[in-house]
Amino acid sequence: MQLESFVARSLGRWRSMRSGHSLAFQQFEDVRSSVLIEPIGLQDPLVLKLIRDCKIHDAKPLLPFRMEWNAESDWEPDGPSEVSAGSCVLIPIPTDNQKGILLRSAGYAEAEQAVSNYAFLEDDTFILTTQYGQSIAEERIWFVSENVRCRSSVLRTSAGSGILQTSFASEIRRLDSFSQ
Amino acid sequence: MQLESFVARSLGRWRSMRSGHSLAFQQFEDVRSSVLIEPIGLQDPLVLKLIRDCKIHDAKPLLPFRMEWNAESDWEPDGPSEVSAGSCVLIPIPTDNQKGILLRSAGYAEAEQAVSNYAFLEDDTFILTTQYGQSIAEERIWFVSENVRCRSSVLRTSAGSGILQTSFASEIRRLDSFSQ
Repeated sequence: MQLESFVARSLGRWRSMRSGHSLAFQQFEDVRSSVLIEPIGLQDPLVLKLIRDCKIHDAKPLLPFRMEWNAESDWEPDGPSEVSAGSCVLIPIPTDNQKGILLRSAGYAEAEQAVSNYAFLEDDTFILTTQYGQSIAEERIWFVSENVRCRSSVLRTSAGSGILQTSFASEIRRLDSFSQ
Repeated sequence: MQLESFVARSLGRWRSMRSGHSLAFQQFEDVRSSVLIEPIGLQDPLVLKLIRDCKIHDAKPLLPFRMEWNAESDWEPDGPSEVSAGSCVLIPIPTDNQKGILLRSAGYAEAEQAVSNYAFLEDDTFILTTQYGQSIAEERIWFVSENVRCRSSVLRTSAGSGILQTSFASEIRRLDSFSQ
């Protein structure tokens, strides 16, 4: 099953380089961060709470996981770097082998809970679409080797086809995971 | 046919924001550039020469085009920007509706002629794979709206699975095309 393989390959500690492109202002934001992805149990209170909060009934969750990130922004090369950190719980609920929904305790574009739709392309690219209040985010994640994955996002306005910003992250598995 | 639609949507003048990620050195390179993509004739001398140079026999080329770019690098925010410019001819030679080869008068990763393989995914993402002397490049191009397209690349060593660098470009159609 594509989802099982995708989650298994994603687990671990990653060193991420991410570039954000603000299209209207033609500005770049480059951020290095550390990302940890680890499995959590189906009966974990955070999992049960998120399913309840999202009002998903008869959910058959599979392989929930937790993401944690510590980012260091390059916006101000001469000043103190802005450091941001956070974590969220993600719960896949497959509808068939290729697609399903994904619950998130914190969204990508807006800091609210989100219910996304996911689907896999034939080459295993994972595509996640999230409708927020004011915007729609499409993320793509694909593995280019066992230890390198790419992640892109496009954020557009809910009304109309305006593209607000895009981003791209190159993520390398940290093989020093266990000493961190 | 996916190729015809892809080429038709690509024609025009684009404003590109591109971020390169050097994975080994964890360095970013942000570049703004202007890209022009225009059709050229099947009988254009540049087209005939490239087909001859690539030693492709019985080629059935379709919709050749020309790319021209003017880039301004952000490596040195305080010094004079490094400006690079170039152009190349691209000739698709379909083998079926979804895939084929693409001849390029100048390659992406190395400044040599290149014969790439292309294929479309089911969501119309265009995937281009090029074997160079020392490296293999995989590029992906997908449209997120009529006037915005994304382009990613991953460069890996020919021998082994080492990933050298990645890049991502957000390209916005310039609607002032005709006044340029």
